[in-house]
Amino acid sequence: MKVSELSDRSGLPVQTIKYYIREGLLPKGAATAATRAEYDDTHLDRLRLIRALREVGDLPIASVKLVVHAVDDEEVGLHDLLGTAAYALGPPSEPQPDDPAWRSAREDVDAIIAELGWQVAPDAPTRDLLAQAFVALRRLGVPIVWTELRPYIEAATIIAEHEIGAVPIESERGRAVQTAVATNVLYEKVLLALRRMAQEDVSARRFGDIRGSAGPRTG
Amino acid sequence: MKVSELSDRSGLPVQTIKYYIREGLLPKGAATAATRAEYDDTHLDRLRLIRALREVGDLPIASVKLVVHAVDDEEVGLHDLLGTAAYALGPPSEPQPDDPAWRSAREDVDAIIAELGWQVAPDAPTRDLLAQAFVALRRLGVPIVWTELRPYIEAATIIAEHEIGAVPIESERGRAVQTAVATNVLYEKVLLALRRMAQEDVSARRFGDIRGSAGPRTG
Repeated sequence: MKVSELSDRSGLPVQTIKYYIREGLLPKGAATAATRAEYDDTHLDRLRLIRALREVGDLPIASVKLVVHAVDDEEVGLHDLLGTAAYALGPPSEPQPDDPAWRSAREDVDAIIAELGWQVAPDAPTRDLLAQAFVALRRLGVPIVWTELRPYIEAATIIAEHEIGAVPIESERGRAVQTAVATNVLYEKVLLALRRMAQEDVSARRFGDIRGSAGPRTG
Repeated sequence: MKVSELSDRSGLPVQTIKYYIREGLLPKGAATAATRAEYDDTHLDRLRLIRALREVGDLPIASVKLVVHAVDDEEVGLHDLLGTAAYALGPPSEPQPDDPAWRSAREDVDAIIAELGWQVAPDAPTRDLLAQAFVALRRLGVPIVWTELRPYIEAATIIAEHEIGAVPIESERGRAVQTAVATNVLYEKVLLALRRMAQEDVSARRFGDIRGSAGPRTG
């Protein structure tokens, strides 16, 4: 197909497509004349992946490049490929190794992961993200104990087993990454909305008939 | 105590405390002279609640006011009180009733909540949030089916049962709200970090040894 058709079918302007080619995100088309090139479905698939990374994952071009190159490099195994995409999605972690409270929280995180026996890379940004949440909880005087963490660990495991099981490993690598990114970003929103709804439901059942309770008012 | 001690113990500048009094968020102290007032522990508790709403919940003053007034109004039952705080926390929902895709997604959400028998208010912002996520998934061609939602519903229920069970209903109302806000915001971060870690672990177990798989590369 010509670039105009590729533009129509992908929903992306010709200029954007040419920009992606210049940036090395999209392979050039097969030259059919000095100023003409022919594109095929692999280009369309790649544009869908880039679009998912840009619009759903909200990734900057530099991160899209990283993920796309991992897709193209067959030396990168599926686990590392999914990891590249997941790490790129963020949120960005902000390690603060100079802060003793942060260091202590990060040590707790490492101990928890070790205790669970989870295969999580020593430099995974999620370790820092969890440490950040621990620091904020401790600052509020909320202790971090196993009984408190257990339900979250259980819930996270149920979800992850399902999500990784749903990665389409039979399809091409770009498609697998695209699905994983959409799942990570959009089902995260599904999860958060459902958690809030479930809270409202449980609260209605437990407290719905209690008026003006929970002790005396302040002030 | 004097306002200077209240400032020291709350960690908030005197000017901020006076601003909260002017805004009706904090009751005035008992006047001991024309320009002097005496404060007590209820003021300190209230400042801690305001601080949690501002710094942890990231709420604007108008929303803090809403929550604080609900705490003070003993006609507001515990369920409505927790709901006021939870709805204020957002994220803000963006209903798009003019968009047929949004309307259809919102109908699906309502049908799901009805099917689950969850007590969620008809105008709960979480219904709109879930509809937004559904619209985005459909736009990517991801169908929304029960088998896909089940693990998230199960996970949300486990977490909500735990979280609502942990609300300190014996303590004063402000303290209950403070705990609920901290749980909602900070344990949300804990949950998201653990979900990503669990994904990495499950991926490592399933795909860790597979190199260059998942079909032929694109492009």
